[in-house]
Amino acid sequence: MKFNPIEFIEKKRDGGCHTKEEIQALVDSVMNSRLPDYQLAAWLMAVYFNGLDEEETMYLTKALANSGETIIYADNEKIIDKHSTGGVGDKTTLILIPLVAACGATISKLSGPGLGYTGGTVDKLESIPNMKIHLSEVQFRRQVENIGCAVSGHSAKLAPAEKKFYKLRDVTGTVPSIPLITSSIISKKLAGGAFGYLFDVKFGSGAFMRKESDARLLAESLVSISKKLGKKCIAVITNMEQPLGEFVGNSAEVYESIMVLSGSGPSDTRELCVTLGAYMLNMADICSTVEEGLLLCENALDNGSALAKFAELIKAQGGDPLIVFNPQSIFPSTKLVYEIKSDKKGYLSKLDAKLIGEGLRALGGGRQKQEDKIDSAVAIRLLAKVGSPIKNNETILKLYYNTQEQIDRAMPYLNICWNVSDRAEKNKLIIDYIK
Amino acid sequence: MKFNPIEFIEKKRDGGCHTKEEIQALVDSVMNSRLPDYQLAAWLMAVYFNGLDEEETMYLTKALANSGETIIYADNEKIIDKHSTGGVGDKTTLILIPLVAACGATISKLSGPGLGYTGGTVDKLESIPNMKIHLSEVQFRRQVENIGCAVSGHSAKLAPAEKKFYKLRDVTGTVPSIPLITSSIISKKLAGGAFGYLFDVKFGSGAFMRKESDARLLAESLVSISKKLGKKCIAVITNMEQPLGEFVGNSAEVYESIMVLSGSGPSDTRELCVTLGAYMLNMADICSTVEEGLLLCENALDNGSALAKFAELIKAQGGDPLIVFNPQSIFPSTKLVYEIKSDKKGYLSKLDAKLIGEGLRALGGGRQKQEDKIDSAVAIRLLAKVGSPIKNNETILKLYYNTQEQIDRAMPYLNICWNVSDRAEKNKLIIDYIK
Repeated sequence: MKFNPIEFIEKKRDGGCHTKEEIQALVDSVMNSRLPDYQLAAWLMAVYFNGLDEEETMYLTKALANSGETIIYADNEKIIDKHSTGGVGDKTTLILIPLVAACGATISKLSGPGLGYTGGTVDKLESIPNMKIHLSEVQFRRQVENIGCAVSGHSAKLAPAEKKFYKLRDVTGTVPSIPLITSSIISKKLAGGAFGYLFDVKFGSGAFMRKESDARLLAESLVSISKKLGKKCIAVITNMEQPLGEFVGNSAEVYESIMVLSGSGPSDTRELCVTLGAYMLNMADICSTVEEGLLLCENALDNGSALAKFAELIKAQGGDPLIVFNPQSIFPSTKLVYEIKSDKKGYLSKLDAKLIGEGLRALGGGRQKQEDKIDSAVAIRLLAKVGSPIKNNETILKLYYNTQEQIDRAMPYLNICWNVSDRAEKNKLIIDYIK
Repeated sequence: MKFNPIEFIEKKRDGGCHTKEEIQALVDSVMNSRLPDYQLAAWLMAVYFNGLDEEETMYLTKALANSGETIIYADNEKIIDKHSTGGVGDKTTLILIPLVAACGATISKLSGPGLGYTGGTVDKLESIPNMKIHLSEVQFRRQVENIGCAVSGHSAKLAPAEKKFYKLRDVTGTVPSIPLITSSIISKKLAGGAFGYLFDVKFGSGAFMRKESDARLLAESLVSISKKLGKKCIAVITNMEQPLGEFVGNSAEVYESIMVLSGSGPSDTRELCVTLGAYMLNMADICSTVEEGLLLCENALDNGSALAKFAELIKAQGGDPLIVFNPQSIFPSTKLVYEIKSDKKGYLSKLDAKLIGEGLRALGGGRQKQEDKIDSAVAIRLLAKVGSPIKNNETILKLYYNTQEQIDRAMPYLNICWNVSDRAEKNKLIIDYIK
């Protein structure tokens, strides 16, 4: 079809609906560089205001997914994939991959680097010495088929149009649009070839969505578009007011993951992984009920099979599998440690995930710019969570760092990230399920 | 100030208001090419949806005006300027310039080329042999001071940022925004140095604004921003459902202008010019009431002084002043003429200005692309106007053209541009005044 970009922009500006052919022509024009960025930017802003309906979102998702290579598995392989909208201290992917694979499911996970103050799975795994995080498509597929799991950074060849869209959205104020976020997330999953998706949609201070209602809208959109595309799907809405678990920082989160895979570790991280794992097993028809899935996951954590699978995964990707039996070897070994203590007694009433994420970034554990190098060893340990009773002079945060400059940059965030009050209730972590 | 384009876009996207400094920084960034077009495009679309308030519109207008050279007259010169939002057969500027100058006012008129299906003053005057339409700033000022009037195409040095904004709006679906139109129009007037503005805001099939209510909003915005900028100002809302006057076409409209300046010509063109002229004279303090201005204008048309001033204007700009006394010399002398006749009796109930404008463009009298050459001689003569009684077989339109190809292209528009019914009322031409 002949694509007239001005009429296309005006149609969305005036609240019209695009056809499948128009959306395909848009993505084709972006891929062959015939559409100037300024016209795509104007259209994206019109979409910010007027939205895309379900059909348009599905067509855009498909067109983005098909803009490059796609991975195709046989139907009976029932590969599952998992996506988190990102949070502070969110190491669930590291645990879930070996956990569900140990229970007999097959999981393929393509991950991006961390953005802003939230950490990325790829960055965390890179703190395991020699572990290869960028697999070729052939290596990736073979490993999924051999050991039931693999994790890799996104290949530039999968959904390249999505990358072009995202890069422009990032600099034109058009990131926070539910249909654009939906098509961006699902297009990469679609190109990755899985048959079922689990979405962990987080809200709160440390998440992209601040409000529960926005997270719910995104979760509903993700589920509805995935189903329209013929996929199995569930979305879990989880609270990210405070960070997940006990550690924030790249190698420290691998440490915590090994702890959870060994049957110990903080209860909130374990609870979330067991729950998400149960839904993934159910989706992959490993069990007929979610309750059965919960038991399978609990057992795999407690009997060492999940930990053994993590060792197998690390070995398959070139790392040293023995670290899982010697987690101290990956525990933050920084030159300096500093403790932030409470000056009164009461209950921890605030542990702001965004400020802690910013604090870690200021310590050198996250990127200001895409090309920044990360200091894997720096970390923040959370010795209390919201609702915990606090004694006078009790340590709230323990900071692991290497230079005075790091801590000078981080303290403005970390000094104000917590609060102790006379009373405080524990946060509920898992808020709702959208099927 | 440090200008963060992403925060700037997000502020407008979220309904915020920009400061004077932010808007100045925007225009500065456009002028020094530091702001990519895609960010300006995203902001323009956000403005399309969320608007600009009066303060923001005024700051943008000023910043655009001050982006290049500006013409400055002494305060006591009381230069007036006139702007029409564009229509089909709109030759009022050609008549008003000599008319108000003949009555003692001083008028400086900077004009753009015709856009789309509406004709431009510059194109019309170029059909006068040897007439120079692109004057230097020095020539322009000197002529305004010597004979009280001058007309010239826009210099690229006046309000260059406005040109950059307009060029991008034209290809990103962001033209129809009242605050953006307002700042675009007034910034050029402001750079031109006049002290009072008359705006002819047209609505209807042949105008940029289709609906009277939209024209009213634009008129109110133009008047309010002009006043905030310390200018005298009036806006007239006029009907452009049917073309103005008897002729549409470049040299034919000069012919009609000479007719009106000679005291004859079609009554609607004369009425509009006398009315607009009266308001301009009143604005320039040539008369104390508009009624007095009407008489001055009527007299200047009837006693030959306006016609003599037109001759003086043509001579000052290098053309042959004698054409005003021999208007036949400029009357369309095409090789071929075709008459479209009514096949029934009744009253003319439709004479669609847009279709006639498109018909003239198809005849070669307007541009499809900015670089197209115009055939000045082609014309459409309107032998009846809406409400005129029509006999069976009476000629409605007379087409002046040079090649079979021209008329083949034009007939699809011109065959359907008119209608005869059992009854039809005359259109009111001047609808309202906004002061």
